[in-house]
Amino acid sequence: MERHHFEDDLQALKNRLLTMGALVEDRVRRAVVALIERRAELAQEVIAGDHEVNDLQIEIDDRCLKLLALQQPIASDLRLITAAMKINADLERIGDQAVNIAQNASRILWQAPLRPLLDIPRMAELAQAMTRDSLDAFVRKDAPLARTVLARDDEVDGLKDQVFRVLLTYMMADPGTIERALGLILVSRNLERIADHATNIAEDVIFLVEAKDVRHHHEEKKP
Amino acid sequence: MERHHFEDDLQALKNRLLTMGALVEDRVRRAVVALIERRAELAQEVIAGDHEVNDLQIEIDDRCLKLLALQQPIASDLRLITAAMKINADLERIGDQAVNIAQNASRILWQAPLRPLLDIPRMAELAQAMTRDSLDAFVRKDAPLARTVLARDDEVDGLKDQVFRVLLTYMMADPGTIERALGLILVSRNLERIADHATNIAEDVIFLVEAKDVRHHHEEKKP
Repeated sequence: MERHHFEDDLQALKNRLLTMGALVEDRVRRAVVALIERRAELAQEVIAGDHEVNDLQIEIDDRCLKLLALQQPIASDLRLITAAMKINADLERIGDQAVNIAQNASRILWQAPLRPLLDIPRMAELAQAMTRDSLDAFVRKDAPLARTVLARDDEVDGLKDQVFRVLLTYMMADPGTIERALGLILVSRNLERIADHATNIAEDVIFLVEAKDVRHHHEEKKP
Repeated sequence: MERHHFEDDLQALKNRLLTMGALVEDRVRRAVVALIERRAELAQEVIAGDHEVNDLQIEIDDRCLKLLALQQPIASDLRLITAAMKINADLERIGDQAVNIAQNASRILWQAPLRPLLDIPRMAELAQAMTRDSLDAFVRKDAPLARTVLARDDEVDGLKDQVFRVLLTYMMADPGTIERALGLILVSRNLERIADHATNIAEDVIFLVEAKDVRHHHEEKKP
């Protein structure tokens, strides 16, 4: 019976993490839509709504601590719960990046658009899918899916470098574009950080499933 | 006897975290010196040495998992060990930022210096002291010291905004400065992220000591 409750509690924990993941992914999506569709009010909405993410993070952290304290889990259950705590922290920081994107977007929306937005929409799609898949990989203990997230991180880094190079040439050719180009460079770095967090989650999943530490083997440092 | 060993193990864990903290702080210091003194070889040294941080992170994480599994700690010991796992992750990411600073510095060192470096050395000092103090606060369970870290985070954010504004005017006045100014903007963001990680650590310490969740009360989102 005790064990039965424990399984229920673990399932509830996973469900709350999925809710957290869906929430932050939706907030990233809306921040990027605000930039692309130039909707200042949507950006403000994202900035104002961060408390939902924070409240959920604290709730999930409490669940983890209670499970550790009351159930005294060992081996794979222990690793599952400590992984959940780390994943929760990464999701919360993805939520922070949604706010940062909305703020960076707000600052440049009042100027005429620098078009095109280059690879930024593509970076956003990748980062969101990586977040979703890393979390699905956690819930399903699916190491191969987690590995696809690691692979996509390199693609995001490549796009970030490309965006940077192109915007640099814009700025040099026409100083009137500097502010807007800088805003886009910062957004591309926000998206890169989201992909980094998804990669951290994927590494935790692989460690959890294979009890093998992949951290720092894949990892490439990004400026 | 069991309990005696446990205390020894906790002390050893704290000592390893202090070693980790000293290591990443030294790496941040050297990355900033490479920028200020224009020493490309020192920047390369920082970039090449990241594995030390990664190895230590894995070792500390293993210690935490073993303590949780073998000792089944409850209450404040449980919180101490889960806090140590989170702090360890923040320290590792501070180490990543040292690499990023060294990379950003490398890219602009071959050009004539944009002088002065504005408030970047001051930001670096603050971020390093915040890292050191947040970790001392953890080891000594010193919540008031941790609170001083939270207060200093606002100062770092203010400096970051100021650096950004000044460099923006440089770039607009003289497009020849764009690349170097961009490099410095990115370094100032790297330093801001270090201060953020130190702030995360300080919040974990306050939660640990006062069993009160300060996360997200202080926190201001940064673009």
